[in-house]
Amino acid sequence: MPTVRVVLVEPKNEGNVGAVARSMRNFGAEDLVLVNPCRLGAEARRRAMRGIEILEAARKVGDLDAALKDTDFVAGTSGVDTESEKRFARISVTPRDFASRLAKMDGRVSLLFGREDFGLLDEELRRCDLLITIPASSEYPILNLSHAVTILLYELLAAGAMQHRRREASGMEKEKLHEAFKSLLAETNYPAHKRARTQVMFRRLIGRAVPSKWEFHALMGVIQRATKRIQRLERKD
Amino acid sequence: MPTVRVVLVEPKNEGNVGAVARSMRNFGAEDLVLVNPCRLGAEARRRAMRGIEILEAARKVGDLDAALKDTDFVAGTSGVDTESEKRFARISVTPRDFASRLAKMDGRVSLLFGREDFGLLDEELRRCDLLITIPASSEYPILNLSHAVTILLYELLAAGAMQHRRREASGMEKEKLHEAFKSLLAETNYPAHKRARTQVMFRRLIGRAVPSKWEFHALMGVIQRATKRIQRLERKD
Repeated sequence: MPTVRVVLVEPKNEGNVGAVARSMRNFGAEDLVLVNPCRLGAEARRRAMRGIEILEAARKVGDLDAALKDTDFVAGTSGVDTESEKRFARISVTPRDFASRLAKMDGRVSLLFGREDFGLLDEELRRCDLLITIPASSEYPILNLSHAVTILLYELLAAGAMQHRRREASGMEKEKLHEAFKSLLAETNYPAHKRARTQVMFRRLIGRAVPSKWEFHALMGVIQRATKRIQRLERKD
Repeated sequence: MPTVRVVLVEPKNEGNVGAVARSMRNFGAEDLVLVNPCRLGAEARRRAMRGIEILEAARKVGDLDAALKDTDFVAGTSGVDTESEKRFARISVTPRDFASRLAKMDGRVSLLFGREDFGLLDEELRRCDLLITIPASSEYPILNLSHAVTILLYELLAAGAMQHRRREASGMEKEKLHEAFKSLLAETNYPAHKRARTQVMFRRLIGRAVPSKWEFHALMGVIQRATKRIQRLERKD
Protein backbone atom coordinates (compact mmCIF):
# COMPACT_ATOMS: atom_id res chain seq x y z
CA MET A 1 0.00 0.00 0.00
CA PRO A 2 1.39 3.42 -0.91
CA THR A 3 1.59 6.46 1.32
CA VAL A 4 -1.35 8.76 0.70
CA ARG A 5 -1.13 12.52 0.38
CA VAL A 6 -4.35 14.52 0.43
CA VAL A 7 -4.13 17.67 -1.70
CA LEU A 8 -6.90 20.25 -1.41
CA VAL A 9 -6.81 22.77 -4.24
CA GLU A 10 -7.95 26.24 -3.15
CA PRO A 11 -10.41 25.18 -0.44
CA LYS A 12 -12.67 28.12 0.40
CA ASN A 13 -14.26 26.92 3.62
CA GLU A 14 -12.03 26.48 6.66
CA GLY A 15 -14.54 24.16 8.33
CA ASN A 16 -14.14 21.73 5.46
CA VAL A 17 -10.37 21.74 5.86
CA GLY A 18 -10.73 20.92 9.55
CA ALA A 19 -13.20 18.14 8.80
CA VAL A 20 -10.77 16.69 6.25
CA ALA A 21 -8.00 16.63 8.86
CA ARG A 22 -10.28 14.75 11.24
CA SER A 23 -11.22 12.25 8.57
CA MET A 24 -7.56 11.70 7.74
CA ARG A 25 -6.89 10.86 11.37
CA ASN A 26 -9.87 8.48 11.32
CA PHE A 27 -8.50 6.58 8.37
CA GLY A 28 -4.76 6.70 9.05
CA ALA A 29 -3.60 9.30 6.50
CA GLU A 30 -1.25 12.08 7.65
CA ASP A 31 0.14 14.10 4.77
CA LEU A 32 -2.10 17.10 4.02
CA VAL A 33 -1.12 19.72 1.44
CA LEU A 34 -3.17 22.85 0.75
CA VAL A 35 -2.84 24.81 -2.49
CA ASN A 36 -3.71 28.47 -1.89
CA PRO A 37 -6.14 27.73 0.95
CA CYS A 38 -8.52 30.13 2.65
CA ARG A 39 -7.50 31.46 6.08
CA LEU A 40 -7.57 28.68 8.68
CA GLY A 41 -8.92 29.81 12.03
CA ALA A 42 -10.95 28.65 15.01
CA GLU A 43 -13.62 26.88 12.94
CA ALA A 44 -11.04 24.73 11.14
CA ARG A 45 -9.46 23.76 14.46
CA ARG A 46 -12.83 23.01 16.04
CA ARG A 47 -13.87 20.70 13.21
CA ALA A 48 -10.49 18.95 13.14
CA MET A 49 -11.08 17.43 16.59
CA ARG A 50 -8.29 14.89 17.10
CA GLY A 51 -7.04 15.57 13.59
CA ILE A 52 -5.69 18.87 14.89
CA GLU A 53 -2.04 17.80 14.52
CA ILE A 54 -2.60 16.93 10.87
CA LEU A 55 -4.21 20.34 10.34
CA GLU A 56 -1.32 22.14 12.04
CA ALA A 57 1.29 20.18 10.09
CA ALA A 58 -0.47 20.78 6.75
CA ARG A 59 1.86 22.25 4.15
CA LYS A 60 0.60 25.35 2.31
CA VAL A 61 1.90 25.81 -1.23
CA GLY A 62 1.32 28.29 -4.03
CA ASP A 63 0.79 25.95 -6.95
CA LEU A 64 -0.07 22.39 -7.88
CA ASP A 65 3.47 21.48 -8.96
CA ALA A 66 4.75 22.16 -5.47
CA ALA A 67 1.92 20.08 -4.01
CA LEU A 68 2.68 17.08 -6.23
CA LYS A 69 6.44 17.03 -5.54
CA ASP A 70 7.79 13.51 -4.85
CA THR A 71 4.52 11.93 -5.95
CA ASP A 72 4.46 8.70 -7.98
CA PHE A 73 0.80 8.71 -8.90
CA VAL A 74 -1.82 11.45 -9.06
CA ALA A 75 -5.53 10.66 -8.74
CA GLY A 76 -8.03 13.45 -9.18
CA THR A 77 -11.65 13.55 -8.11
CA SER A 78 -14.35 14.74 -10.43
CA GLY A 79 -17.99 15.14 -9.51
CA VAL A 80 -18.97 14.91 -13.13
CA ASP A 81 -18.44 11.62 -14.89
CA THR A 82 -19.09 11.49 -18.56
CA GLU A 83 -20.35 8.96 -21.00
CA SER A 84 -19.20 11.08 -23.88
CA GLU A 85 -16.20 9.52 -25.50
CA LYS A 86 -15.24 12.92 -26.80
CA ARG A 87 -14.77 14.21 -23.30
CA PHE A 88 -12.56 11.24 -22.51
CA ALA A 89 -10.41 13.39 -20.21
CA ARG A 90 -13.24 13.03 -17.71
CA ILE A 91 -13.64 9.27 -17.92
CA SER A 92 -13.23 7.97 -14.41
CA VAL A 93 -13.26 4.95 -12.12
CA THR A 94 -15.16 4.36 -8.88
CA PRO A 95 -13.49 4.83 -5.49
CA ARG A 96 -13.64 1.06 -4.97
CA ASP A 97 -12.00 0.30 -8.26
CA PHE A 98 -9.35 2.89 -7.45
CA ALA A 99 -8.74 1.44 -3.99
CA SER A 100 -8.25 -2.07 -5.32
CA ARG A 101 -5.70 -0.81 -7.86
CA LEU A 102 -3.93 1.28 -5.25
CA ALA A 103 -3.60 -1.62 -2.85
CA LYS A 104 -1.11 -3.13 -5.29
CA MET A 105 1.07 -0.02 -5.54
CA ASP A 106 3.96 1.38 -3.60
CA GLY A 107 5.42 4.85 -3.34
CA ARG A 108 3.37 8.00 -2.76
CA VAL A 109 -0.06 8.70 -4.18
CA SER A 110 -1.58 12.17 -4.21
CA LEU A 111 -5.35 12.45 -4.02
CA LEU A 112 -6.47 15.72 -5.57
CA PHE A 113 -9.67 17.46 -4.48
CA GLY A 114 -10.88 20.63 -6.17
CA ARG A 115 -12.61 23.78 -5.05
CA GLU A 116 -15.99 23.51 -3.31
CA ASP A 117 -17.69 25.34 -6.17
CA PHE A 118 -15.70 24.66 -9.35
CA GLY A 119 -13.85 21.43 -8.58
CA LEU A 120 -10.62 20.89 -10.48
CA LEU A 121 -9.81 22.91 -13.59
CA ASP A 122 -9.10 21.20 -16.91
CA GLU A 123 -5.38 21.88 -16.63
CA GLU A 124 -5.37 20.29 -13.17
CA LEU A 125 -7.33 17.28 -14.41
CA ARG A 126 -4.75 16.78 -17.13
CA ARG A 127 -2.07 16.26 -14.49
CA CYS A 128 -3.94 13.24 -13.13
CA ASP A 129 -2.99 9.64 -13.91
CA LEU A 130 -6.51 8.58 -13.03
CA LEU A 131 -9.84 10.22 -12.32
CA ILE A 132 -12.27 9.07 -9.68
CA THR A 133 -15.97 9.83 -9.55
CA ILE A 134 -18.00 8.94 -6.49
CA PRO A 135 -21.24 7.31 -7.61
CA ALA A 136 -24.10 9.49 -6.42
CA SER A 137 -27.58 10.67 -7.33
CA SER A 138 -27.68 12.12 -10.82
CA GLU A 139 -29.96 14.83 -9.46
CA TYR A 140 -27.31 16.17 -7.13
CA PRO A 141 -23.95 14.43 -7.43
CA ILE A 142 -21.86 17.21 -5.85
CA LEU A 143 -20.66 16.11 -2.44
CA ASN A 144 -19.36 18.23 0.37
CA LEU A 145 -15.55 18.36 0.16
CA SER A 146 -14.89 16.52 3.43
CA HIS A 147 -17.50 13.90 2.52
CA ALA A 148 -15.69 13.19 -0.73
CA VAL A 149 -12.34 12.88 1.06
CA THR A 150 -13.93 10.62 3.67
CA ILE A 151 -15.31 8.18 1.10
CA LEU A 152 -11.97 7.93 -0.69
CA LEU A 153 -9.99 7.36 2.51
CA TYR A 154 -12.57 4.88 3.77
CA GLU A 155 -12.29 2.85 0.56
CA LEU A 156 -8.50 2.89 0.78
CA LEU A 157 -8.52 1.67 4.36
CA ALA A 158 -11.07 -1.00 3.49
CA ALA A 159 -8.95 -2.20 0.55
CA GLY A 160 -5.80 -2.26 2.68
CA ALA A 161 -6.69 -5.66 4.12
CA MET A 162 -6.35 -7.42 0.78
CA GLN A 163 -3.04 -6.11 -0.43
CA HIS A 164 -0.40 -7.99 -2.32
CA ARG A 165 2.70 -6.25 -3.49
CA ARG A 166 4.10 -5.71 -6.92
CA ARG A 167 7.01 -3.52 -7.95
CA GLU A 168 5.45 -0.90 -10.07
CA ALA A 169 6.94 1.80 -12.23
CA SER A 170 7.89 5.01 -10.40
CA GLY A 171 6.56 8.44 -11.26
CA MET A 172 9.80 9.30 -13.04
CA GLU A 173 9.73 6.15 -15.14
CA LYS A 174 6.17 6.83 -16.16
CA GLU A 175 7.06 10.36 -17.24
CA LYS A 176 9.76 8.86 -19.50
CA LEU A 177 7.17 6.56 -20.98
CA HIS A 178 4.87 9.49 -21.72
CA GLU A 179 7.77 11.39 -23.28
CA ALA A 180 8.54 8.38 -25.47
CA PHE A 181 4.90 8.14 -26.53
CA LYS A 182 4.94 11.83 -27.41
CA SER A 183 8.03 11.33 -29.59
CA LEU A 184 6.36 8.44 -31.36
CA LEU A 185 3.37 10.61 -32.21
CA ALA A 186 5.72 13.25 -33.61
CA GLU A 187 7.71 10.76 -35.70
CA THR A 188 4.57 9.27 -37.21
CA ASN A 189 3.27 12.74 -38.13
CA TYR A 190 0.27 12.18 -35.91
CA PRO A 191 -2.25 14.99 -36.60
CA ALA A 192 -1.15 17.94 -34.46
CA HIS A 193 -4.65 18.84 -33.29
CA LYS A 194 -5.18 15.33 -31.90
CA ARG A 195 -1.83 14.91 -30.15
CA ALA A 196 -2.70 16.44 -26.79
CA ARG A 197 -5.80 14.35 -26.26
CA THR A 198 -4.17 11.15 -27.48
CA GLN A 199 -1.40 11.72 -24.95
CA VAL A 200 -3.95 12.19 -22.19
CA MET A 201 -5.73 9.03 -23.37
CA PHE A 202 -2.48 7.10 -23.06
CA ARG A 203 -1.75 8.59 -19.63
CA ARG A 204 -5.15 7.51 -18.33
CA LEU A 205 -4.86 4.05 -19.84
CA ILE A 206 -1.48 3.53 -18.17
CA GLY A 207 -2.84 5.06 -14.98
CA ARG A 208 -5.62 2.50 -14.86
CA ALA A 209 -3.36 -0.39 -15.75
CA VAL A 210 -0.69 0.42 -13.09
CA PRO A 211 2.27 -1.13 -14.93
CA SER A 212 4.96 -3.01 -13.04
CA LYS A 213 8.60 -2.07 -13.54
CA TRP A 214 8.97 -4.97 -15.91
CA GLU A 215 5.93 -3.97 -17.95
CA PHE A 216 7.16 -0.42 -18.05
CA HIS A 217 10.51 -1.49 -19.52
CA ALA A 218 8.89 -3.80 -22.05
CA LEU A 219 6.41 -1.17 -23.23
CA MET A 220 9.09 1.52 -23.29
CA GLY A 221 11.20 -0.81 -25.43
CA VAL A 222 8.48 -1.27 -28.02
CA ILE A 223 7.73 2.45 -28.29
CA GLN A 224 11.37 3.54 -28.48
CA ARG A 225 12.11 0.82 -30.98
CA ALA A 226 9.35 1.99 -33.31
CA THR A 227 10.46 5.60 -32.98
CA LYS A 228 14.12 4.80 -33.67
CA ARG A 229 13.30 2.59 -36.62
CA ILE A 230 11.35 5.42 -38.25
CA GLN A 231 14.20 7.86 -37.53
CA ARG A 232 16.80 5.52 -39.01
CA LEU A 233 14.75 4.86 -42.13
CA GLU A 234 14.10 8.55 -42.56
CA ARG A 235 17.80 9.36 -42.49
CA LYS A 236 18.24 6.95 -45.39
CA ASP A 237 15.75 8.90 -47.50
CA MET B 1 -33.81 -2.52 -2.25
CA PRO B 2 -35.71 -1.13 0.73
CA THR B 3 -36.57 2.49 1.45
CA VAL B 4 -34.05 4.06 3.81
CA ARG B 5 -34.87 6.28 6.78
CA VAL B 6 -32.06 8.16 8.50
CA VAL B 7 -32.65 8.62 12.23
CA LEU B 8 -30.38 10.98 14.16
CA VAL B 9 -30.68 10.54 17.92
CA GLU B 10 -30.20 13.80 19.84
CA PRO B 11 -27.81 15.51 17.44
CA LYS B 12 -26.13 18.43 19.20
CA ASN B 13 -24.58 20.26 16.26
CA GLU B 14 -26.93 21.84 13.74
CA GLY B 15 -24.20 21.97 11.09
CA ASN B 16 -23.99 18.19 11.20
CA VAL B 17 -27.73 17.88 10.65
CA GLY B 18 -27.51 20.12 7.60
CA ALA B 19 -24.56 18.14 6.25
CA VAL B 20 -26.53 14.91 6.73
CA ALA B 21 -29.43 16.35 4.70
CA ARG B 22 -27.05 17.25 1.89
CA SER B 23 -25.51 13.79 1.91
CA MET B 24 -28.97 12.20 1.78
CA ARG B 25 -29.75 14.23 -1.31
CA ASN B 26 -26.41 13.12 -2.82
CA PHE B 27 -27.23 9.47 -2.33
CA GLY B 28 -30.94 9.43 -2.99
CA ALA B 29 -32.36 9.09 0.54
CA GLU B 30 -35.21 11.37 1.61
CA ASP B 31 -36.72 10.35 4.91
CA LEU B 32 -34.97 12.13 7.82
CA VAL B 33 -36.17 11.78 11.42
CA LEU B 34 -34.64 13.67 14.34
CA VAL B 35 -35.04 12.51 17.94
CA ASN B 36 -34.84 15.51 20.30
CA PRO B 37 -32.52 17.50 18.06
CA CYS B 38 -30.71 20.73 18.85
CA ARG B 39 -32.17 23.95 17.45
CA LEU B 40 -31.84 24.07 13.68
CA GLY B 41 -30.93 27.49 12.34
CA ALA B 42 -28.96 29.24 9.62
CA GLU B 43 -25.89 27.00 9.92
CA ALA B 44 -27.95 23.84 9.35
CA ARG B 45 -29.58 25.39 6.29
CA ARG B 46 -26.26 26.62 4.94
CA ARG B 47 -24.64 23.19 5.21
CA ALA B 48 -27.67 21.43 3.70
CA MET B 49 -27.09 23.08 0.32
CA ARG B 50 -29.45 21.34 -2.10
CA GLY B 51 -30.54 18.98 0.66
CA ILE B 52 -32.51 21.90 2.12
CA GLU B 53 -35.88 20.33 1.29
CA ILE B 54 -34.94 17.16 3.15
CA LEU B 55 -33.89 19.25 6.14
CA GLU B 56 -37.13 21.22 6.10
CA ALA B 57 -39.25 18.08 5.76
CA ALA B 58 -37.39 16.30 8.59
CA ARG B 59 -39.74 14.96 11.25
CA LYS B 60 -38.87 15.85 14.86
CA VAL B 61 -39.97 13.32 17.48
CA GLY B 62 -39.61 12.97 21.23
CA ASP B 63 -38.49 9.37 21.50
CA LEU B 64 -37.01 6.50 19.57
CA ASP B 65 -40.26 4.53 19.33
CA ALA B 66 -41.86 7.34 17.39
CA ALA B 67 -38.83 7.53 15.10
CA LEU B 68 -38.94 3.83 14.31
CA LYS B 69 -42.65 3.70 13.49
CA ASP B 70 -43.44 1.73 10.30
CA THR B 71 -39.90 0.40 10.15
CA ASP B 72 -39.17 -3.18 9.05
CA PHE B 73 -35.55 -3.33 10.06
CA VAL B 74 -33.38 -1.23 12.39
CA ALA B 75 -29.63 -0.92 11.89
CA GLY B 76 -27.57 1.02 14.42
CA THR B 77 -24.11 2.44 14.06
CA SER B 78 -21.48 1.98 16.69
CA GLY B 79 -18.00 3.48 16.70
CA VAL B 80 -16.81 0.77 19.03
CA ASP B 81 -16.70 -2.76 17.75
CA THR B 82 -15.99 -5.61 20.09
CA GLU B 83 -14.66 -9.10 19.78
CA SER B 84 -15.84 -10.00 23.25
CA GLU B 85 -18.65 -12.52 23.16
CA LYS B 86 -19.81 -11.19 26.48
CA ARG B 87 -20.47 -7.83 24.94
CA PHE B 88 -22.29 -9.52 22.09
CA ALA B 89 -24.74 -6.62 21.93
CA ARG B 90 -21.95 -4.63 20.28
CA ILE B 91 -20.86 -7.21 17.72
CA SER B 92 -21.24 -5.59 14.36
CA VAL B 93 -20.84 -5.90 10.60
CA THR B 94 -19.08 -3.60 8.15
CA PRO B 95 -21.03 -1.08 6.06
CA ARG B 96 -20.29 -3.16 2.96
CA ASP B 97 -21.56 -6.35 4.50
CA PHE B 98 -24.65 -4.48 5.64
CA ALA B 99 -25.23 -3.01 2.19
CA SER B 100 -25.03 -6.38 0.49
CA ARG B 101 -27.56 -7.81 2.95
CA LEU B 102 -29.84 -4.82 2.54
CA ALA B 103 -29.81 -5.05 -1.25
CA LYS B 104 -31.81 -8.26 -0.89
CA MET B 105 -34.44 -6.77 1.41
CA ASP B 106 -37.68 -4.90 0.88
CA GLY B 107 -39.73 -2.61 3.08
CA ARG B 108 -38.32 0.23 5.17
CA VAL B 109 -34.98 0.23 6.95
CA SER B 110 -34.06 2.74 9.64
CA LEU B 111 -30.42 3.68 10.03
CA LEU B 112 -29.76 4.88 13.56
CA PHE B 113 -26.97 7.33 14.35
CA GLY B 114 -26.17 8.38 17.92
CA ARG B 115 -25.04 11.55 19.62
CA GLU B 116 -21.80 13.22 18.51
CA ASP B 117 -20.24 12.54 21.91
CA PHE B 118 -21.87 9.45 23.41
CA GLY B 119 -23.20 7.61 20.38
CA LEU B 120 -26.16 5.32 20.98
CA LEU B 121 -27.05 4.22 24.51
CA ASP B 122 -27.26 0.53 25.40
CA GLU B 123 -31.05 0.58 25.42
CA GLU B 124 -31.05 2.14 21.95
CA LEU B 125 -28.54 -0.41 20.67
CA ARG B 126 -30.83 -3.17 21.91
CA ARG B 127 -33.55 -1.92 19.57
CA CYS B 128 -31.31 -2.62 16.59
CA ASP B 129 -31.62 -5.72 14.43
CA LEU B 130 -28.03 -5.27 13.37
CA LEU B 131 -25.06 -3.11 14.33
CA ILE B 132 -22.66 -1.55 11.88
CA THR B 133 -19.14 -0.38 12.65
CA ILE B 134 -17.22 1.62 10.08
CA PRO B 135 -13.67 0.26 9.85
CA ALA B 136 -11.29 3.04 10.90
CA SER B 137 -7.98 3.71 12.63
CA SER B 138 -7.87 2.09 16.06
CA GLU B 139 -6.18 5.26 17.32
CA TYR B 140 -9.20 7.41 16.54
CA PRO B 141 -12.20 5.50 15.21
CA ILE B 142 -14.82 8.15 16.05
CA LEU B 143 -16.08 9.75 12.85
CA ASN B 144 -17.90 13.00 12.43
CA LEU B 145 -21.66 12.30 12.39
CA SER B 146 -22.24 13.40 8.80
CA HIS B 147 -19.17 11.45 7.67
CA ALA B 148 -20.60 8.28 9.20
CA VAL B 149 -23.97 8.86 7.51
CA THR B 150 -22.22 9.55 4.22
CA ILE B 151 -20.28 6.28 4.25
CA LEU B 152 -23.41 4.26 5.03
CA LEU B 153 -25.47 5.91 2.30
CA TYR B 154 -22.61 5.64 -0.15
CA GLU B 155 -22.32 1.89 0.49
CA LEU B 156 -26.05 1.45 0.02
CA LEU B 157 -26.07 3.31 -3.26
CA ALA B 158 -22.97 1.43 -4.38
CA ALA B 159 -24.53 -1.93 -3.59
CA GLY B 160 -27.55 -1.02 -5.69
CA ALA B 161 -25.99 0.67 -8.62
CA MET B 162 -22.23 0.54 -8.93
CA GLN B 163 -22.39 -0.99 -12.39
CA HIS B 164 -20.15 0.94 -14.68
CA ARG B 165 -21.88 2.38 -17.68
CA ARG B 166 -18.93 2.92 -19.91
CA ARG B 167 -18.90 1.61 -23.45
CA GLU B 168 -16.06 -0.83 -23.36
CA ALA B 169 -14.16 -2.10 -26.35
CA SER B 170 -15.51 -5.47 -27.46
CA GLY B 171 -13.51 -8.68 -27.42
CA MET B 172 -13.18 -8.53 -31.20
CA GLU B 173 -11.88 -4.99 -31.10
CA LYS B 174 -9.35 -5.93 -28.49
CA GLU B 175 -8.13 -8.83 -30.60
CA LYS B 176 -7.57 -6.41 -33.49
CA LEU B 177 -5.53 -4.26 -31.15
CA HIS B 178 -3.37 -7.22 -30.18
CA GLU B 179 -2.89 -8.15 -33.84
CA ALA B 180 -1.80 -4.59 -34.56
CA PHE B 181 0.64 -4.70 -31.65
CA LYS B 182 2.06 -7.97 -32.96
CA SER B 183 2.58 -6.41 -36.41
CA LEU B 184 4.39 -3.48 -34.84
CA LEU B 185 6.78 -5.83 -33.05
CA ALA B 186 7.47 -7.60 -36.35
CA GLU B 187 8.08 -4.36 -38.26
CA THR B 188 10.51 -3.08 -35.65
CA ASN B 189 12.47 -6.36 -35.73
CA TYR B 190 11.67 -6.91 -32.09
CA PRO B 191 13.81 -9.83 -30.81
CA ALA B 192 11.95 -13.01 -31.75
CA HIS B 193 12.49 -14.77 -28.42
CA LYS B 194 10.92 -11.86 -26.53
CA ARG B 195 7.88 -11.35 -28.74
CA ALA B 196 5.50 -13.79 -27.12
CA ARG B 197 5.98 -12.46 -23.60
CA THR B 198 5.85 -8.82 -24.71
CA GLN B 199 2.53 -9.54 -26.39
CA VAL B 200 1.25 -11.12 -23.19
CA MET B 201 2.50 -8.11 -21.22
CA PHE B 202 0.50 -5.82 -23.52
CA ARG B 203 -2.57 -8.03 -23.27
CA ARG B 204 -2.49 -7.95 -19.47
CA LEU B 205 -1.91 -4.22 -19.40
CA ILE B 206 -4.91 -3.62 -21.64
CA GLY B 207 -6.92 -6.16 -19.67
CA ARG B 208 -6.36 -4.21 -16.48
CA ALA B 209 -6.98 -0.83 -18.10
CA VAL B 210 -10.32 -1.91 -19.69
CA PRO B 211 -10.22 0.59 -22.57
CA SER B 212 -13.36 2.29 -23.79
CA LYS B 213 -14.27 2.12 -27.47
CA TRP B 214 -12.84 5.56 -27.98
CA GLU B 215 -9.55 4.72 -26.27
CA PHE B 216 -9.35 1.55 -28.30
CA HIS B 217 -9.64 3.48 -31.55
CA ALA B 218 -7.12 6.12 -30.48
CA LEU B 219 -4.54 3.54 -29.40
CA MET B 220 -5.13 1.43 -32.48
CA GLY B 221 -4.55 4.54 -34.57
CA VAL B 222 -1.17 5.22 -33.00
CA ILE B 223 0.04 1.63 -33.38
CA GLN B 224 -1.12 1.24 -36.98
CA ARG B 225 0.33 4.58 -37.89
CA ALA B 226 3.77 3.63 -36.59
CA THR B 227 3.62 0.28 -38.41
CA LYS B 228 2.57 1.83 -41.70
CA ARG B 229 5.16 4.58 -41.49
CA ILE B 230 7.92 1.99 -41.10
CA GLN B 231 6.51 -0.05 -44.00
CA ARG B 232 6.33 2.97 -46.27
CA LEU B 233 9.86 4.07 -45.42
CA GLU B 234 11.16 0.54 -45.98
CA ARG B 235 9.64 0.39 -49.44
CA LYS B 236 11.64 3.52 -50.32
CA ASP B 237 14.87 1.77 -49.32
